[in-house]
Amino acid sequence: MKIILIGGTGTIGQAIKKELSSTHEIVSIGRSTSISCNINSEKSIEEMFKKIGPFDAMIVAAGEVHFAPLEEMDGTKFQVGLNSKLMGQVNTVLIGMKYIKDNGSFTLTSGTLSLDPVRGGSSASLVNAALNGFVLGSSIELPRGIRINAVSPTIVTESLESYGSYFKGYESVSAHKVALAYVKSIEGHQTGKIYNVLP
Amino acid sequence: MKIILIGGTGTIGQAIKKELSSTHEIVSIGRSTSISCNINSEKSIEEMFKKIGPFDAMIVAAGEVHFAPLEEMDGTKFQVGLNSKLMGQVNTVLIGMKYIKDNGSFTLTSGTLSLDPVRGGSSASLVNAALNGFVLGSSIELPRGIRINAVSPTIVTESLESYGSYFKGYESVSAHKVALAYVKSIEGHQTGKIYNVLP
Repeated sequence: MKIILIGGTGTIGQAIKKELSSTHEIVSIGRSTSISCNINSEKSIEEMFKKIGPFDAMIVAAGEVHFAPLEEMDGTKFQVGLNSKLMGQVNTVLIGMKYIKDNGSFTLTSGTLSLDPVRGGSSASLVNAALNGFVLGSSIELPRGIRINAVSPTIVTESLESYGSYFKGYESVSAHKVALAYVKSIEGHQTGKIYNVLP
Repeated sequence: MKIILIGGTGTIGQAIKKELSSTHEIVSIGRSTSISCNINSEKSIEEMFKKIGPFDAMIVAAGEVHFAPLEEMDGTKFQVGLNSKLMGQVNTVLIGMKYIKDNGSFTLTSGTLSLDPVRGGSSASLVNAALNGFVLGSSIELPRGIRINAVSPTIVTESLESYGSYFKGYESVSAHKVALAYVKSIEGHQTGKIYNVLP
């Protein structure tokens, strides 16, 4: 399969690439890859798909959310996550629908904070839940046998140094274990599923 | 209690008012009420709270979402629901936090499409799920004993004529039954709960 991997240079992206690259053609999209994409821009997304042409599967493991205590949050800070992690991923699906082959699949990335919140994570809880809702809603409408799922991981062991302070007491999972959920989404036949990756 | 009811003139809003007005002071906010509010505007929300002053509880039963088949949806059409039903409600909480009394409560309105989707409802599935995620995330951070819950109703019997065509085969619930969930949220002591109102 030809698989577009947006966020291919991130912690989870690298683990996904390792898992899939021996058996599939991976088009890795990062900040400094030959084909790049700013998922906050519909124009940039469209240009990426035009350059790549028809494909079998797309994974998005990218997108930002603003973390801050609720009392410091305002509409503008919520907008960071709405524009990037939420609509960035949603727009890759809405636009990618025109380019993906019959029976192709989209796999998005949400996260455990939709169910298991932390202080400072109100925007992440909102965005991750929204992505899961979109996956469920769009799964019953995608045409031509196209599927869509989301992977919702807890904190990844390899990211503990950067984000562990937000997730005190959370048991982490390896990036390898998270990557397996993407493989299941792509190689399996399920749709409208949220794969919660927990220890 | 002094209760702000945004959307007080709508189908659900009227049922809530009927349920609460004999024992509480209801400040009903609609399009043609003496104090009005455009929840899409942070400025309008702030002005409303300034006019009303301290209050004990706020209910929001308002907000728009664009319904259309997935293939007709784009970023701009998703933005309708993000600006209105989602961030309209979130912003009333973020701004209302400054005006609400100690131990007050916020009750937002999501909807069953986050779990039980229909064709044309991908934006509603996204927005309703996002609201539930926000309620869970913010519930652990609200200060001064302030609580937050969401009511997530299925199709309301009184709205079947307008929206029933989207909900073929869905058993409806009365607006009265939906109103009881708001009463439970306000008069009870729970927080971070999603009250699914199903037959």
